Amino acid sequence: MNKIQNIVLIGAGNVATHLGLAIQNTGRQIIQVYSRKEVTARVLAEKLKTDFTVDLKTIYPDADLYIISVADDAIERITGLLQVNRSLVVHTSGSVSLDVLRACSENYGVLYPLQTFSKERKIEFSVVPLCIEANSKDNFLLLEQLAKNLSQKVVKVDSEERKILHLAGVFACNFPNFMYRIADQILTEMKLDFDLLRPLILETATKVQKMRPADAQTGPASRGDKSILRKHDALLKEYPEYVEIYKMLSDGIRRSRNKWEIYE
Amino acid sequence: MNKIQNIVLIGAGNVATHLGLAIQNTGRQIIQVYSRKEVTARVLAEKLKTDFTVDLKTIYPDADLYIISVADDAIERITGLLQVNRSLVVHTSGSVSLDVLRACSENYGVLYPLQTFSKERKIEFSVVPLCIEANSKDNFLLLEQLAKNLSQKVVKVDSEERKILHLAGVFACNFPNFMYRIADQILTEMKLDFDLLRPLILETATKVQKMRPADAQTGPASRGDKSILRKHDALLKEYPEYVEIYKMLSDGIRRSRNKWEIYE
Repeated sequence: MNKIQNIVLIGAGNVATHLGLAIQNTGRQIIQVYSRKEVTARVLAEKLKTDFTVDLKTIYPDADLYIISVADDAIERITGLLQVNRSLVVHTSGSVSLDVLRACSENYGVLYPLQTFSKERKIEFSVVPLCIEANSKDNFLLLEQLAKNLSQKVVKVDSEERKILHLAGVFACNFPNFMYRIADQILTEMKLDFDLLRPLILETATKVQKMRPADAQTGPASRGDKSILRKHDALLKEYPEYVEIYKMLSDGIRRSRNKWEIYE
Repeated sequence: MNKIQNIVLIGAGNVATHLGLAIQNTGRQIIQVYSRKEVTARVLAEKLKTDFTVDLKTIYPDADLYIISVADDAIERITGLLQVNRSLVVHTSGSVSLDVLRACSENYGVLYPLQTFSKERKIEFSVVPLCIEANSKDNFLLLEQLAKNLSQKVVKVDSEERKILHLAGVFACNFPNFMYRIADQILTEMKLDFDLLRPLILETATKVQKMRPADAQTGPASRGDKSILRKHDALLKEYPEYVEIYKMLSDGIRRSRNKWEIYE
C-alpha cells in the first residue's frame, strides 16, 4: 500500500482551503486546485503555491487522491465529468452518500471534517474530528493514514451515521449561531454592546466540553419561572419575528425537563 | 464614603455561591448566609467559613451590604420581610426593577452578573460583565468600587436595559444549550459519541468572540442548500418534536440573510 502523496483539490471554498493548508503541513503536495470561478481557484492556488484550473477536463491525471470539496448539489455534476482512472476519490460532505463517487473511480471514500470553517479564521486542525469511510479495506487504510496525520480524532463513520452527525451539527453550530445573531440584533437596536454577551456565549459552550448539555441547562424556562417568561414575551412585542422562536424553544426546554431526567 | 466590608448574602444558589466566593477573594467578609433551606444555607456557609440562618428575622443588622440573590419570584417576599435600616441592599436579577428594593431600605441598587453559573464549575469572575445601577450617585460609587474589585468589566445599565440584556442572554445561552441537548439526544439515540460535536460547539462560540455572528453564519439554511434541508427534514421524522424547531430556525436563517445584509 502506497502513501498518499500528490493530491488534487476540487473546490476552493472554506473546507477546501483549510483542508488544503492542513494537508500541506503534513508534507504532502496539493498539485492542483480546481474551481469553476477563476478568482477563487487562483486565490487558493496562491495560498498553496500550486497550479489551478477552471476546466475539469484539464485536471491532472494520476494524482494519488482527488478531494471533492464543493457544495452538495455540485458533487453530482463533478462526478459525472471527472475521470481519474483508478485513483482514490473522496468527498468531504456530511450529507452525501459514499456511493455517488462510484461514477468516477473504482476507489473512493469520504473524509468529513466535523467543524465550521470560515476563510478568515485559523483552525487548529489537529483537534477537528475527521469522519472517514471508504469502499474497501485498503482504501480505508490509505485514507486513515492521511487522516491521522491531519487530526488526533479520526473515526470510522458510515454514510447513515454521517448524515445524522451532520444534522446534529446543524443543531450544535448553525442554530446556536443564529441565536447569537438574534441576541446581537436585540442589543444593537437598544444601543447595547454585543461585547457584554461574549463571555456568556463562550462559557455556555465551554461548560458542555465536560458536562452533558442536559446538566448545564439554566434560565427561566428551565427553572419554570413564569414571571420572567411573561416579561420576555412582553418585551418581544418589539421583535415579532422572534416571539414564536422564544415560545417554541422555551416550551421545548420546559417539556424536556422531565423527559431528560428519565432519558439521562 | 466608606468601603463595603461586611456583607450578608441572602440566597445560596448558583449566583450567590459564585459571587460569595469572588467577594471573599477581594478581602471582604461574608458575615452571614441566608437560605430558606437549611442544607443549602449550611453548604454555602461552610464554603465561605461563615454563619448561616434560615430565618430572615435573625439576619445580622448593620452589615455594609445585603445581597439578595434568589429566584425572581422570591425577591418580593424577601423585600417585604427584610429590615436593614439604612444599609445598602442590592439584588442580582436580570429582570427585576431596581425600585422593588425601596421597600426595605433607602439605599439600594442592582449588581447583575451577566453569566451562566453552575455550582460545580469554577468561573473566572474577573471577566464576567457586571451590570450595576443604584438609587443615588453615592450608592452607585460604593457599588462600583466593589464591582471593579470583582471584575474588569463593569457597566452602568439601567433597569430597562438590564431587562433587554437578560432577554438577549436567553438567546445567547439558554437556547444554544437547548440546541446542544437536541444534538446530544440525536447522537445518543444513534449510539454516536457527543464528544464528536464538542470541538464544533466550542469553535462556534469562539468564532463570535471576534466576529459578528451574522458574519459567522454557516450551514445549509445559510447557503440556501435545499437538497440538504429536504434530507434533514426526512431524517427528523424520527424526532417529531424537533421538526418544527428545525423548520422555524432554518426559515429564520434564510429570511435573515437579506435583512442582515441591510442591517449590518
